[in-house]
Amino acid sequence: MAITVVGSVAFDSIETPAGRRERCLGGAATYFSLAASYFTDVRVIAVVGEDFGPRQLAVFNARGIDTQGIERAAGKSFFWEGSYLENLNEAKTHATELNVFGAFEPKIPEAYRDSEFLFLANIDPVLQRRVREAMPNARLVAGDTMNYWIKDHRAALLEVLKGLDILLINDTETKMLAGNNNLVQAARAVLAMGPRMLVVKHGEYGATAFHGASKDGVAAKTFRAPALPLEEVVDPTGAGDSFAGGFFGYIASQSKITPATFRHAMFYGSVMGSFAVERFGTERLQQLSREEIDHRFGLFRELTHLD
Amino acid sequence: MAITVVGSVAFDSIETPAGRRERCLGGAATYFSLAASYFTDVRVIAVVGEDFGPRQLAVFNARGIDTQGIERAAGKSFFWEGSYLENLNEAKTHATELNVFGAFEPKIPEAYRDSEFLFLANIDPVLQRRVREAMPNARLVAGDTMNYWIKDHRAALLEVLKGLDILLINDTETKMLAGNNNLVQAARAVLAMGPRMLVVKHGEYGATAFHGASKDGVAAKTFRAPALPLEEVVDPTGAGDSFAGGFFGYIASQSKITPATFRHAMFYGSVMGSFAVERFGTERLQQLSREEIDHRFGLFRELTHLD
Repeated sequence: MAITVVGSVAFDSIETPAGRRERCLGGAATYFSLAASYFTDVRVIAVVGEDFGPRQLAVFNARGIDTQGIERAAGKSFFWEGSYLENLNEAKTHATELNVFGAFEPKIPEAYRDSEFLFLANIDPVLQRRVREAMPNARLVAGDTMNYWIKDHRAALLEVLKGLDILLINDTETKMLAGNNNLVQAARAVLAMGPRMLVVKHGEYGATAFHGASKDGVAAKTFRAPALPLEEVVDPTGAGDSFAGGFFGYIASQSKITPATFRHAMFYGSVMGSFAVERFGTERLQQLSREEIDHRFGLFRELTHLD
Repeated sequence: MAITVVGSVAFDSIETPAGRRERCLGGAATYFSLAASYFTDVRVIAVVGEDFGPRQLAVFNARGIDTQGIERAAGKSFFWEGSYLENLNEAKTHATELNVFGAFEPKIPEAYRDSEFLFLANIDPVLQRRVREAMPNARLVAGDTMNYWIKDHRAALLEVLKGLDILLINDTETKMLAGNNNLVQAARAVLAMGPRMLVVKHGEYGATAFHGASKDGVAAKTFRAPALPLEEVVDPTGAGDSFAGGFFGYIASQSKITPATFRHAMFYGSVMGSFAVERFGTERLQQLSREEIDHRFGLFRELTHLD
């Protein structure tokens, strides 16, 4: 089934211990779409500037991603510059230029309206909510957010959470959102805000899915997917969005959604995150095969299973 | 088969967000022994002072631990005072009094010499090596160390590593020992120093076992056990030593050691670590049942396995 994703399509300048890249294709919706495209049909809603040309569009089209929802506006595309020189787990932001993204008004193409799966990538919660309301047929809605919205746009964010089935955020964001430094207690508090499932991304340590109530001091229904121990992380940018794309893409590709579907989705999320960081930007996500993906899924199974 | 462990038996004063305890029984060999005692026979080599009385000894004896190797010397026992008020993952040390431990000369009781399993807990590598050489019949030797020995006693530590089958240390120690900030590359460098297996403890994120060479940029033989997401960590002291006790205790209890043995041992290590932090000091480790341990093992399986 098709996923519609709304979020940023951008240019990133990135410096890591492995080198530097100027203005490579980036943005949460880009990473998400590419990762999800190996599992199901993907439709993107975003805005780009006049600097976004046929070469960038071709990256989406080569993966069969529907780009009619990518609006072209006068001005420049969203631009981010960051580095990971001291710590591969945390980007240091040098520049953020919203450009055309600052006045983004998501427009949903008629052909997208039957999408049963909706992903609200990290954007202003007011826009996330507007898209959610314009897509009443979506039967599974997942989303992301970040510290900025948690801190300064809490009321709008809480409205979004009420309409979410699955929230995917990291450890720090979970604790900040809940105002609680114990991850299990924080997860419980976030689940009480609306989402039926919370996926907490731990970076190099993988991710944990929480759902259901706690019991005897132990989170009742949890599932943890590891990250793959890699010899070299070239560029961590987009790892979390790629996780989300693999996770939600796999779910949308299944005819029946069972508890086992979510466990497999956690592994596919980790698989796509592990590929994303192997090259700069979206390079690796552009050229995968389903065989490589399933081979790596097997490595994750070996990494975690007793027998 | 019996394990002999050499290490500290101490008194700890501990403050955590859950409260404070004065001079409770602690020390690496204590946590290790108690955790391992649920799986196999354990024999301890340590030194204590005149403040170590029948009440402390009874904690070991109640678990059937052989204490004839615990030497009583004139003076006071090793004492440590620390807190975890800001960060449950890292102790802030307020006081370390070596006392009788400063002149520790491990003496190995004759009855311990047939031990096939030897655990060298975190003590001066010169002493670790001496005990290793005095136990030539040990067929599997595991050990721990810490930043202080890695930094200032490197030559002596490297001699110990040559004689180790399994080294259990944390992320920071692994990277410091290897002089490399990528965990997989660091693990490979540490394995080249001697140990056939490296178990890296990640605190709240579990632990990863590395052995064998890397392939295609992915660590070839790795296995990751998660930690259990807990509603409340009362006292993290001794979690790593309890992990080691569960890990090595399980291995020593098996008649045949296969790759699956190590994977199960990683889970039992995490299980014992998860119990240790539920109460102050060794309280929880004193009163477990094998049923509780195996029930929790099942939770770890659910937490990680796809089907």
